[in-house]
Amino acid sequence: MTRADGRAADELRPITIERGWSSQAEGSALISFGATKVLCTASFTNGVPRWLNGKGKGWVTAEYSMLPRSTNERMDRESVKGKIGGRTHEISRLIGRSLRAVIDTKALGENTIVIDCDVLQADGGTRTAAITGAYVALADSIEWARTQKFIGQKSQPLVDSVAAVSVGIIDGEPLLDLAYVEDVRAETDMNVVATGRGLFVEVQGTAEGAPFDRRELDSLLDLALGGTARLTELQLAALGEELARP
Amino acid sequence: MTRADGRAADELRPITIERGWSSQAEGSALISFGATKVLCTASFTNGVPRWLNGKGKGWVTAEYSMLPRSTNERMDRESVKGKIGGRTHEISRLIGRSLRAVIDTKALGENTIVIDCDVLQADGGTRTAAITGAYVALADSIEWARTQKFIGQKSQPLVDSVAAVSVGIIDGEPLLDLAYVEDVRAETDMNVVATGRGLFVEVQGTAEGAPFDRRELDSLLDLALGGTARLTELQLAALGEELARP
Amino acid sequence: MTRADGRAADELRPITIERGWSSQAEGSALISFGATKVLCTASFTNGVPRWLNGKGKGWVTAEYSMLPRSTNERMDRESVKGKIGGRTHEISRLIGRSLRAVIDTKALGENTIVIDCDVLQADGGTRTAAITGAYVALADSIEWARTQKFIGQKSQPLVDSVAAVSVGIIDGEPLLDLAYVEDVRAETDMNVVATGRGLFVEVQGTAEGAPFDRRELDSLLDLALGGTARLTELQLAALGEELARP
Amino acid sequence: MTRADGRAADELRPITIERGWSSQAEGSALISFGATKVLCTASFTNGVPRWLNGKGKGWVTAEYSMLPRSTNERMDRESVKGKIGGRTHEISRLIGRSLRAVIDTKALGENTIVIDCDVLQADGGTRTAAITGAYVALADSIEWARTQKFIGQKSQPLVDSVAAVSVGIIDGEPLLDLAYVEDVRAETDMNVVATGRGLFVEVQGTAEGAPFDRRELDSLLDLALGGTARLTELQLAALGEELARP
Amino acid sequence: MTRADGRAADELRPITIERGWSSQAEGSALISFGATKVLCTASFTNGVPRWLNGKGKGWVTAEYSMLPRSTNERMDRESVKGKIGGRTHEISRLIGRSLRAVIDTKALGENTIVIDCDVLQADGGTRTAAITGAYVALADSIEWARTQKFIGQKSQPLVDSVAAVSVGIIDGEPLLDLAYVEDVRAETDMNVVATGRGLFVEVQGTAEGAPFDRRELDSLLDLALGGTARLTELQLAALGEELARP
Amino acid sequence: MTRADGRAADELRPITIERGWSSQAEGSALISFGATKVLCTASFTNGVPRWLNGKGKGWVTAEYSMLPRSTNERMDRESVKGKIGGRTHEISRLIGRSLRAVIDTKALGENTIVIDCDVLQADGGTRTAAITGAYVALADSIEWARTQKFIGQKSQPLVDSVAAVSVGIIDGEPLLDLAYVEDVRAETDMNVVATGRGLFVEVQGTAEGAPFDRRELDSLLDLALGGTARLTELQLAALGEELARP
Repeated sequence: MTRADGRAADELRPITIERGWSSQAEGSALISFGATKVLCTASFTNGVPRWLNGKGKGWVTAEYSMLPRSTNERMDRESVKGKIGGRTHEISRLIGRSLRAVIDTKALGENTIVIDCDVLQADGGTRTAAITGAYVALADSIEWARTQKFIGQKSQPLVDSVAAVSVGIIDGEPLLDLAYVEDVRAETDMNVVATGRGLFVEVQGTAEGAPFDRRELDSLLDLALGGTARLTELQLAALGEELARP
Repeated sequence: MTRADGRAADELRPITIERGWSSQAEGSALISFGATKVLCTASFTNGVPRWLNGKGKGWVTAEYSMLPRSTNERMDRESVKGKIGGRTHEISRLIGRSLRAVIDTKALGENTIVIDCDVLQADGGTRTAAITGAYVALADSIEWARTQKFIGQKSQPLVDSVAAVSVGIIDGEPLLDLAYVEDVRAETDMNVVATGRGLFVEVQGTAEGAPFDRRELDSLLDLALGGTARLTELQLAALGEELARP
Repeated sequence: MTRADGRAADELRPITIERGWSSQAEGSALISFGATKVLCTASFTNGVPRWLNGKGKGWVTAEYSMLPRSTNERMDRESVKGKIGGRTHEISRLIGRSLRAVIDTKALGENTIVIDCDVLQADGGTRTAAITGAYVALADSIEWARTQKFIGQKSQPLVDSVAAVSVGIIDGEPLLDLAYVEDVRAETDMNVVATGRGLFVEVQGTAEGAPFDRRELDSLLDLALGGTARLTELQLAALGEELARP
Repeated sequence: MTRADGRAADELRPITIERGWSSQAEGSALISFGATKVLCTASFTNGVPRWLNGKGKGWVTAEYSMLPRSTNERMDRESVKGKIGGRTHEISRLIGRSLRAVIDTKALGENTIVIDCDVLQADGGTRTAAITGAYVALADSIEWARTQKFIGQKSQPLVDSVAAVSVGIIDGEPLLDLAYVEDVRAETDMNVVATGRGLFVEVQGTAEGAPFDRRELDSLLDLALGGTARLTELQLAALGEELARP
Repeated sequence: MTRADGRAADELRPITIERGWSSQAEGSALISFGATKVLCTASFTNGVPRWLNGKGKGWVTAEYSMLPRSTNERMDRESVKGKIGGRTHEISRLIGRSLRAVIDTKALGENTIVIDCDVLQADGGTRTAAITGAYVALADSIEWARTQKFIGQKSQPLVDSVAAVSVGIIDGEPLLDLAYVEDVRAETDMNVVATGRGLFVEVQGTAEGAPFDRRELDSLLDLALGGTARLTELQLAALGEELARP
Repeated sequence: MTRADGRAADELRPITIERGWSSQAEGSALISFGATKVLCTASFTNGVPRWLNGKGKGWVTAEYSMLPRSTNERMDRESVKGKIGGRTHEISRLIGRSLRAVIDTKALGENTIVIDCDVLQADGGTRTAAITGAYVALADSIEWARTQKFIGQKSQPLVDSVAAVSVGIIDGEPLLDLAYVEDVRAETDMNVVATGRGLFVEVQGTAEGAPFDRRELDSLLDLALGGTARLTELQLAALGEELARP
């Protein structure tokens, strides 16, 4: 089978990561997975939510959203509808959990980092691009906090890096990093979040068409770990030597 | 390690399924996984949502909710807060997808089935109990529809059965069907939805504490498939011979 | 006239009260008035709402809700609609007022009790069943608070018991405790909340069809007081000797 | 006991009814019960809500609201809070039911009348003033519809008139038409809606302090019927001879 | 061209200002611009919003709303729709800014004045009538606060007065104070807010039909300043000698 | 006076307009006014809103929004708050009116164009950048529609071009195109929307500090028209020869 854009089954789309895109945020990255473009900003503030007060720990959370015309057909804005949809909630929670898996909240101190992931253009894989870019924005903001002395010179709140990729089965073949045209055809769709050290943070597999067996699951996991390893390299390149793998 | 309630690592809590609990709904089941109790009702109506009109297919969807004092501390009602939380949305969507994985919408005809899963008492595993009970309510309503001739005598909208169970790792040991006291301690938490034939519908694993490796993932999947196989037997027993495995 | 279920005009439906149904709540009762089933839980917490702070008084409030498929046709969830309907608000307020009429808030101390009344199955009279069951859950939670020493051994926050019943006029005849099929046909519909001592807490009569005269009003009040007296006996039986009429 | 404003126990406050206050609405009345002032407008439109289509019947409904500074302390606007409170809902429903009790919906034809009752100034009894003024606005709009030939010359949608008054017990004495300073002190508070012929439409009695007995209830009902009879006269005077008692 | 109501191009509609209409509010005015009637109330409270705490300054804000049947066709209530429309927001903000332009917040001290402008009847120019009436209610409340000694005898929070009027171009002719039938026909519509000293606070001109040139803009501004000067005289007359131009 | 960035009083910030930034939308432009960056997309669809059906006219509308971290301090998302703020509403309405002023809706036919203006980075003048960019996206989408034959080859829905700029008075000096640091200091702030032919579409002047006189207003209008003329040239350059001034 040949993929629509000519990629090999285990090949990522062209990935670009522009660290420090925003001149307003404490950390930021504009990431693209092919035509999918996500702007990730990190807002660092001193202090924590009330329920964490005085525990000596920090907090990291995330919000995901799509611009109304990031997609092929315009969607109504969630602000206009007056409520956030289930999918948006679900992805925001996933990004937050993924980042917290590589954060040592004690080392962060009583500080809060909010990561906003806004999809400027969508062509499949927006949640995996968001997680991958969010890590870069997070690391960028921690570096900023260190220069501002909000975090000690020797503290390292990052215990590992984290990246994510989608995999799926189309016509029986496992494929890496699905573009939108592939995503809608996939029988099984899986998002895998893994650390730079190759450990799983999240595994979310869904049978869109027929249920899948254990062998298929295994081949998807293999493919995904190859993808997150390559994304880890690109994150480290974007962050530069000094911020390389914590 | 001994579990708090004395169970073996691969043992389910006591499971009861009361088919036909409701005298109002077209299908229903009151299911308990230990102290977790979920009332599942199926509402069968002729016709489909507008976007499916005239396509000769049916629709199955689900809504999940917890009573405010189903839990150890009272939660505010989502109706009072004026919006549905992310967790509720996420679980409702999961139940809906799980049921649709075993439905042949063509055989269902242009009919809609809404499954409501209301947690009366919560002690861990509410989403997996909900899916397992929802299948019984769904099958119950399809049997009702057949007696009402809304579905042909020879039509079989159910292509398989579906059940779900949680698994997790505590102190390094993989355990089946976590109660609440176990759930809060688990390093890794996974919900597995599988069909009566043993195929995966959903696999959702999350590192709550440390990320997990491939070997741990494999042992959790083994444990889960054992649990869903046992739940499948209990579902079929509740439904009776005539509705046994489609 | 014979009633659909063969009852006499002044006869209640079969009533059951299961005290302590919930293993999570401080007090609870599952009550049924015929096919109407309401789960009442009491959540006891130390402290009071801000506006009562430091006044040495407690607070009792209630919330009423119906499961979407408690009724013959499925209703949309209020949490999904994003707002609470007028009827729900009205009944929640009625239950709260009814309970507060028999509470000595000074004897309760600065504690709050929230009563949740969730209708699991509806066949007319849900608000009256809710009030009757709510009193049992309330008394159950006060007993619990006494064992926990949150209320002194000699304090008695309950100054009386409270129960409620519906009455109505159908084809000119006054009837007690209307089932749904009767309720929709009633020309006049009245809900009466009365204490164990036979005093009125609430009288809410509405002409659904033709307005009613003073004589009809009198006969409905007579019938209602007979019903609440019988419900008082059943409440006391459910609570047991030691909690009998305060 | 002397009342604060020197009235007798069975005396209404000064009542004024200004029919046709609005130059925009099809019917209107500005009513005052002492310092309580309510603007009632009737909006008459051809056609009915979807669920009544083709049944040859009309529809009457009402909405009640208070201006934020109608009261002694400013209240937040419900439009700003984004939701309508329970009390507002309850009163809107009460006004609608009261008006429908005197309407022959067949004679109204497939037309809809929406009555808006906006409290410009509040000093107790806003709901009873609203109902009493709403009837005048309703009758005014029906007269308008007749001149427009939306209703036949011989049709009479009004089968009776309707008025409302509050009564209460203060220091053991039953009093008519409570002003705000009386209302907050009342042990028992009752709103009675009655027709021009002296029949009950609604009886809503609430024990604010101690529960009340049958004798107290009777004396309150006597007092209320005297008040509604006097209000009926004032309504007819405002409407003029030609619209006098239907 | 003759205007529908026979006015000259530079003539205001009949204006009435009833200071002190409300017996509940600290300041109030019922203002009419022809058939447009707006009730303006001022709520004076000690203290300021949290973000102004301890700065020695007061705060003035405003809320605008229309009764549902103030207009020729009934509008849905914003409280029922659950959200405030853009136009309402815009006008509330405009009124607030206009009033703050003539307030010395230091002289006001740490006090808050909320102005509510509720349109009882609408016939064009509701926002300009609201601003003009709001100033009278504001001055009325400041006089009240001085008598209550919440503001020092020598403090003068009002540095000028403020009034507003609409102007527009119809069939090429600039007209003052448009009634509704004129407003819908205007090619250009402008609202001008000016102080008693004749300085601009707000100029909001909009091309409803064809864009306008500099010469047209100039003639509209001339006309508007004539109107606001006349309104200033009427405000001062309503407030009386002692409150005359600060 | 020297401006913070060294500009002359009548000098715009560096302006860039990237036409066709989006690969999903029918028309788009990424515009920057200095550090202010706004992504404008045009969504062209056949058909019109229900209230315009069958009138042979098209519809153009706009929505404005800011990313939560477009600003120096993170703002809460309006989707999370569940409602749109007054400022957002106001600017969305302004953009829509500005675009409709240069559209011949008959020539557009029964088609709808929705313009989304999302502020990626904010440094003052976001609404004026949005209007200026929105025109380019609008023209881009009309060109697209012509190639798709949704609009006839000879139809020209654009009757003029439109651009906007802010002006203000700081320390008594009128300045063009205020950056954020200037905006917060301005005594008077004015936004002017003008067409390519130099006619006014909107003039919105506000006294932030002291009210302004006629002479100041005149000098601000002069400055603004110089700015919009320069922006018109840049728009035409971005659109290219073939789309030059309609």
